[in-house]
Parts: sequence; C-alpha cells; structure tokens
Amino acid sequence: MHTVRRLLTAVLSLLVGQTFLSGRLQAAEVEQWGIFEVTLKGPADGNPFVDVELSATFTQGKTQVRAAGFYDGDGTYRVRFMPEAQGEWAYTTASNRAELNGKSGTFTVGKPGPGNRGPVRVRNTYHFAYADGTPHVSVGTTCYAWTHQGDALEEQTLATLKAAPFNKLRMCVFPKWYAFNRTEPPRYPFAGTPPNKWDLERFNPDFFRHLEKRVGQLRDLGIEADVILFHPYDDGHWGFDRMPPAADDRYLRYVVARLAAYRNVWWSLANEFDFMEKTDADWGRFLKIVHEADPHKHLLSIHNGTRLYNQTDPRLTHASVQNGSAVADFGRAVLYRDVYRKPIVFDEVKYEGDFEQRWGNLSAEEMVHRFWQGAIAGTYVGHGETYKHKDDLVWWSRGGVLRGKSPDRLAFLRKVLEAGPADGLEPIDKWQDERTAGKRGEFYLVYLGKDKPTEWAVDLPGKSDKPLTLKAEVLDTWNMTVKPVPGSFTLKQKGGYRLVADPPATIPLPGNPYMAIRLRAEAPKK
Amino acid sequence: MHTVRRLLTAVLSLLVGQTFLSGRLQAAEVEQWGIFEVTLKGPADGNPFVDVELSATFTQGKTQVRAAGFYDGDGTYRVRFMPEAQGEWAYTTASNRAELNGKSGTFTVGKPGPGNRGPVRVRNTYHFAYADGTPHVSVGTTCYAWTHQGDALEEQTLATLKAAPFNKLRMCVFPKWYAFNRTEPPRYPFAGTPPNKWDLERFNPDFFRHLEKRVGQLRDLGIEADVILFHPYDDGHWGFDRMPPAADDRYLRYVVARLAAYRNVWWSLANEFDFMEKTDADWGRFLKIVHEADPHKHLLSIHNGTRLYNQTDPRLTHASVQNGSAVADFGRAVLYRDVYRKPIVFDEVKYEGDFEQRWGNLSAEEMVHRFWQGAIAGTYVGHGETYKHKDDLVWWSRGGVLRGKSPDRLAFLRKVLEAGPADGLEPIDKWQDERTAGKRGEFYLVYLGKDKPTEWAVDLPGKSDKPLTLKAEVLDTWNMTVKPVPGSFTLKQKGGYRLVADPPATIPLPGNPYMAIRLRAEAPKK
Repeated sequence: MHTVRRLLTAVLSLLVGQTFLSGRLQAAEVEQWGIFEVTLKGPADGNPFVDVELSATFTQGKTQVRAAGFYDGDGTYRVRFMPEAQGEWAYTTASNRAELNGKSGTFTVGKPGPGNRGPVRVRNTYHFAYADGTPHVSVGTTCYAWTHQGDALEEQTLATLKAAPFNKLRMCVFPKWYAFNRTEPPRYPFAGTPPNKWDLERFNPDFFRHLEKRVGQLRDLGIEADVILFHPYDDGHWGFDRMPPAADDRYLRYVVARLAAYRNVWWSLANEFDFMEKTDADWGRFLKIVHEADPHKHLLSIHNGTRLYNQTDPRLTHASVQNGSAVADFGRAVLYRDVYRKPIVFDEVKYEGDFEQRWGNLSAEEMVHRFWQGAIAGTYVGHGETYKHKDDLVWWSRGGVLRGKSPDRLAFLRKVLEAGPADGLEPIDKWQDERTAGKRGEFYLVYLGKDKPTEWAVDLPGKSDKPLTLKAEVLDTWNMTVKPVPGSFTLKQKGGYRLVADPPATIPLPGNPYMAIRLRAEAPKK
Repeated sequence: MHTVRRLLTAVLSLLVGQTFLSGRLQAAEVEQWGIFEVTLKGPADGNPFVDVELSATFTQGKTQVRAAGFYDGDGTYRVRFMPEAQGEWAYTTASNRAELNGKSGTFTVGKPGPGNRGPVRVRNTYHFAYADGTPHVSVGTTCYAWTHQGDALEEQTLATLKAAPFNKLRMCVFPKWYAFNRTEPPRYPFAGTPPNKWDLERFNPDFFRHLEKRVGQLRDLGIEADVILFHPYDDGHWGFDRMPPAADDRYLRYVVARLAAYRNVWWSLANEFDFMEKTDADWGRFLKIVHEADPHKHLLSIHNGTRLYNQTDPRLTHASVQNGSAVADFGRAVLYRDVYRKPIVFDEVKYEGDFEQRWGNLSAEEMVHRFWQGAIAGTYVGHGETYKHKDDLVWWSRGGVLRGKSPDRLAFLRKVLEAGPADGLEPIDKWQDERTAGKRGEFYLVYLGKDKPTEWAVDLPGKSDKPLTLKAEVLDTWNMTVKPVPGSFTLKQKGGYRLVADPPATIPLPGNPYMAIRLRAEAPKK
C-alpha cells in the first residue's frame, strides 16, 4: 500500500500540484503552503463568471477549509488551496452545475521547499512572523503599477528587487491613470474595449494569469505581495474606481478565489480609500467579503489618504497608515500602537525623490531616518522612490530600477532588526523614553536621530533587582558601520526608572547624525 | 386660563422644582436644563433598593424621555429629570408597587437662569459646546477625592475653584486609599461597617446626597463634574474596586438615576480602568449600562493607565487619554484625533509638583507647555497638582488650595482659546505644520514651544487664490502678555502649500521660550 502510494506520488509530483480529474480519486504531491489546484472542465456557454458557482471543501482530520473556485476561461474551472498542514488531505467540490459538483480526491502535502516559510501572520501583537516561526521584519517598498508595464520593464523590476532589501511590495491590481502614469496597460481586467467600454460581468483570465505570475515571482524572491484591491488613480478613465456595487463585490470574490492560495499575498483593500467615491458602508462590505472569502486569512489592511479608517476592526490584521509625520520625529509612531493594538505599518511616509510635490521629495537621509523612527517605536515603515525621469520611469509606480540612496541603508537596518529580538523591537519605557527599544534585560537599541552628540552616557530605561552587564556597539545608520565598544558595562538601578552604568560611563561618538547604540546581554554575534 | 396658570406657576415656583404628590395633577416651574424632581412616598419595608422598581416617562409633544427613579431612604422615592426644552411637560410614573405606579402630573419649563448654558455636548467633531451654543473650551483639573475630606476642606476647595480658571473637575464617587490618601471618609456609599463589611444591596442615601450637593455647587460655579464611577485606588481596603458584577451594575444604575439630571455631569467610567481587576467585557457592560440608563446622554468617557480602551466605541463621546508624552512635544496629540474622530481630552499629563514619582513632578512651565501643545493640536488638556504638604493636603486628590504657578497661565490660555474660533482650534495643515492651528483665512495661532527665536517670518500653511491681510499679536504664554504688532501683513500664495508675507516680513521676538503668534483677518478685539 505504502509502496503503491509512494509510486503514485512520485509520478504525480511531476504535475506540481495540478490534478486532472474526471470524478475519480486522484492524488498529488504539494508542499506545505504551496498551491494545490483542482482543475475541472465544465460549461463554456452562457456566462460562466456569473452563472456557475463552484467551491471545494478540503479536509484533514477535524480541519475543514472551504475555498471558492473560479472560471479561468475556455471551459476550465479551478479551485486553489494552500495546505497549512502536512499529510493527507481530501477534498470534495460543490457546484450548481452537475458536471462540477461532487468531485473528490485526496492528496499528500509534504515539507515546505527551500525558502518557503509559509504565509506571514501577526506575532506578539505588534509584529509579524512567517508560519514556520521565522520573524518577518517588514521592509516594504511600493511599485503601484508595475504589473501593467509590459514584460521588459516588469522583468527589470524583478531583477532590481532580487538585489534590493525589500521583503514586501505594494502593488495595485488595477492599472493606474495619474500624473506620470498616463499609458494604457497591455491587459485589462474585464472583457471589452478600452478605455471604458467594459463588460463588468466577464473577467479577462489572461489579465489575472499575468497578475498571478508576477505574484508568484515575488514569492520566489521571498517578497510579500501587498495586493491593493482598489485605488483612486483612475479618475474615471477606465472607471475601475467607480464600478457598481455588484461589480465591485464580484471582482473581490474573483481576485480572492484566484490569489488566496499564494502564500505571499497580503490584502490591502485600498490605497487612499478616502479619496475614492465610496462610503464607509462600502468599505465595511468589502472588508467582510474579503475576510470571509479568504480561506487562508491572509494579512488584511486598508490604507488611508488623510482620513483613517476605523482600524480597530478585528478583521483588519494590522494598521496600514499613510502619515509621514508620524515617523518624522520621536514619540509619535508609538501612539498608534496603543490605540490599535496590532502591528503598525506606515505604508506611505512620502517618497525619496525630487518631485515638486511635497509627498515626493524626501532626501535619502530622511527616508532612512523615518524607517529608524518607525523601528524604534516598535512599528514598520514602507519605502518608495520618486526621482524624475525623462520617460517617467519612476520606481514608486512603474518599477524599473532604483536610483536612490536609501535602499542600501534599509538593507543595513533590516540586518540590524533581524539580529534583534525574535519577538520584535518593543519600546522599553513607552511615553517616557522615546529613543530606546528592544527587550528588557537582553537587547537595547537606542536611536539618536538627527542629534549629533559626541558621547552617550550609558543610561537605559527600566528596573532590575540585579546588575545588568551589557556589551555595546556603535551603529552609524547612514554609513552602515557597526563598531564594538571595548569591554562591557555593568548597569545598576538608579532611582525608580533608570539603569545606569556603575561606575558612570560614556561611549564616545563621532558627532554625526543618525547614530544608534546597540547593547546586548551576551557578546555580539560575529 | 393663562392667568390662572401664571398664578399657579408663581406660587409653585417657590418650591423650586420640587413636587409633593399624592397622585393628583400638580405643576412646578423649573428652568430649562434645571432639575425637575418627582417625589413620592412608598414602602420602607423590605429592601426598597432592590425590591422596588420605579421610573417616569416625561413627555412634550413627540418627545418622550424615560428616567429611572431611586430610593432615597425613609420611604421616599424620587425621579429626576433635566428638561431640555421649554414649555409644558407631562409625566407618568411606572412601578412594580401600586402606590408608586401611574402617578402623573404636568409642569412648566422656563428660560434658563443666569449662568445656565445647559449640558456640554460635542461640537464640530473635535470640540465642545454648551447646549445653548456657547463654546466650551475645556480647561480641567483633578481633585479625585475632594468630596471625602469633610466640610472644612471641601468648602476651601470650592473657594479655590471659584477663583481658579478651571471649568471641569475630575472627581471620584468612591473614596480613595492610596499613597498620601490613607484616611477614612466621613461617609460611605453603602450601609455597613468600615472598612469592609458592607451590605452592597443597601446604598447610603446620605453619602449620595452629599455627593449631589457638591456636584450642584460645582454647577453653580460653572464647573463640569467629570464623575469617575470606578477607580483602582482602593486596593481592597473597602473593596469598592472589587464588588461582584451585580453590585457594580446596581451601583451604576443608582448613581445615574441620582445624578443624570445635573446638567454639569460628565461620566467617566473609570480612572486607569486597566489597573483594575475587571475584564474588557465588564467595561463593555458598564458602558452599556451607563449609556442606556442616562436619559440625557451626558458626555461619557473612560480613562486609561497604560493600555487604552477601544475609544472608537460611538457611545464614548470623547477620548479621555492619560499620556503626558503626547503633549510634551509637537506633532503627537494630533494623531489621536485621526484615529478617534472625536474630542481628545488628555485628562492626565502628569502633575505640576515636587513628588519623587515621575508622574508628579512637572514644572509649572512644562504643565503650561503641555496645555499649549494640546491646544495647538486641536485637543484639550487637564491639570493636576502634586506639591508635597506636611498633612498630605495635595490638590490632585484632596483639594484645598492651589500652590502652583500654572493656573494663572491656564487662565490666560483659556482667554486666548475663548477669543478664538467658535468651532475650536483646528490644525491648519495636519501632518505638515505641527505649530499652527486656527481657522483658515480667519484666525491663526502659531505656538513656538521651547524654541527661543528672536524673530518669526510671516509664513503660514494653506492655499488661497486671493491675498490675505492679517493683523498680528505676539503672545508670551508664560508671562501672560499680548503685544500687538504694528500695521498688518499681506500674505500671498508661494508654491503649493504656504501663504507668505509679500513683501517678506518678520516679527521680532524677545528670545524667550513659550511664545506664540496670533494672526487675525480682522483687527484684534480690545
């Protein structure tokens, strides 16, 4: 029996998670957090996008997961599933069409392949980790319309990302019609004629297959795809920003059915939701649809223009906030943690660049500073770049190449954070010491921002009954250097709130801005 | 008919809103937003506090308001009502006891008396106004346990308040057992024996009559009573912080029945709610009880220790926040406005004083600075004072006299705010210019904080198609001076985001900290 199954598995593993069913039991090997796909042939007449209902229930022991299927054109139907546990699974389909109903099968889920750490989830209230337990230190960037640029530029974007420090990318499903972005895309999401004669009841499978391909390529680069489902940068040109409610809802269900099995997907209901002509009731409905339709409960957020959505809604897994000022100075970003009690991701803090618009002309130094401000507050920041270009090839929206000076420094920051506490950087004494984060007694990171001190007194927030011995390093966050401080420091309680070196000690500093001190209870790792 | 009624009214007005009923129609004159009280005699046997249900419905035209009654001891029952409209009203009682059931009457509500502007409500999303439309610029203070100190000290507190700038006072219903506060109060809320043998099913009417007297005296001084219903500063000594749920709920209904007709009442569910041994489900229940029991829908909030309650709950009329750091520097307080979209009152920002605890040793300058930080962010701040005293007579908790230097400066601030826009100070360009609030085109207040500039360039955030002519004054917020700047300035658009004096102009400053510039479209009022 085992031998037979193993043989069958070996043969079927060539099909990489694809099954070709005709109602009989089949099996396929798929890795944990990979994509198992049920493919069925069914009716191609009428309008399958609206006429045909299809789902499958996937079962392992007491676990039952229901995933919606979708029509992929040419009489082909698919149901996708991301198995979250290894071992044997079974499934059965349900449909309002007999030829798609009651199809069942089993399949075996094996170990995750190299680089597959599963989907990212919230950990320790304010932070993230992959499903396999590896911390996810979010260092995101933004290429809103990169999948609408044609293969040459899109491949260049992927090559750039491969060498960049970013592990998350904000990207829109719909194309973009906005300053610097007035070109027609190669594909449209609906059947019809551009710019605005669409059959909103018929999706264009080719458009979505292309989107999936790009999401899969990001996954293979270890990059989370923060998929933006709606955005206002259409202005009625194609009208995807102002579809009727039924079309909005059908579109959401279709995207979720197609993409939810990709482990690297995050859902962003919108970019600048409040700049669209939709009501809070609409957004509440969209939130419900995506939350309920997604069998895998990917991270789910909504991004604001000037008015924040009520991000306390428990279905929103983290707060995606546009507010550059919150990470421009100390003591601000931390306030969002208290009110939302979930991870805070400042997904737009203005862009490094040279645009005339004030949202697009941060210096590289300021961009890096904002990332550090976010980190020291126990929050996360997203990058974007808006350097002018003769052909408007601006990373922020179209992708291509990075021209700025911040990415190298963000790689340095990411390394620092990944060498930090697995549970994430936490403010050590919130509302009292805005410059120190880490893990009490074990790890301290003190960021000095734009100050240019020539020394730093060894003096940390906290309480401790017993002396604390720490080794220190001086970090230059701009010049990307780490210099160990010789010896170690013994800190003792002084007053009610501080741990101070005894004897008093200071660490010399070069008088540059953007310095940080890292102190650890053990010897720093090489 | 009119003459008869007028005569009757004149006679009955001597009774000042009191009716003495035996089931027949009666009438009484009461002012709008005053207290109309139905007094009934009923059973004194058994336990009227739990056995007897009583309420009354007050009717004017289509308006129907139901208010719960309460047992006031000695066979006396009362139902209190704050009429919010002038003219004729009728009422009918309902009770599970025949002698209290179906009693009805009418009464006439007249104009509000001097100083009566009605209850405070939210206005313009982030601000407050009295029911008569007068803006309420909240300048609060804190005397947690002032009603538990005995008449001499309590009268002194009232005398102090009469001369002080505060128009709101945070005060606890229950007595306080905490550092500097380890005395037994003259009265207890329940029948029984101190310190902790209570009959939680029997209230002590004398305790509550005393509380009401003090709330009424605050009202007569024009001070809102921010009544704190629970607090953790008991630590089990009396046990009012750890009553069983049924006792908590009965207590809340009793307090609301007694106090809701006082127009100056605000409900604060708790001080430092998260320091009590109650769950969020408990607080949700308390919120529901108070919200539903209060026929007049007074302002309702909950104050935190280190963890904020979910203040987006629409029944919470404003966010009562303890976080001194939020008003210690620019660009912080404003963040709470966006997430809560309601008035923000920083009800605890640490205290002016000389305690060793870091929450109790702000300088007067810092306290005043925090009020200005709050104001410039479009929020409100509360005061408190903790100067050591040989007999622990500390204003923060016990009242008495004020010893600090901030109150005079807060009087100055209040005057500035009351001379500002009726809709409240709003950030002119939030997230971009943290120092400027006011009303676009009409009124600008620029606070310079701890900087000590010797001049200020006339340069404001905003956009305007046409030139803007403004007159300016220099305010020294610490020395309480207002100095008009000669002439006026014409500001024109420069770039996309600023209005700049044309020709360029600067206003000389003395090089002191805590300066502000006030600019108005019209000539400053004398």
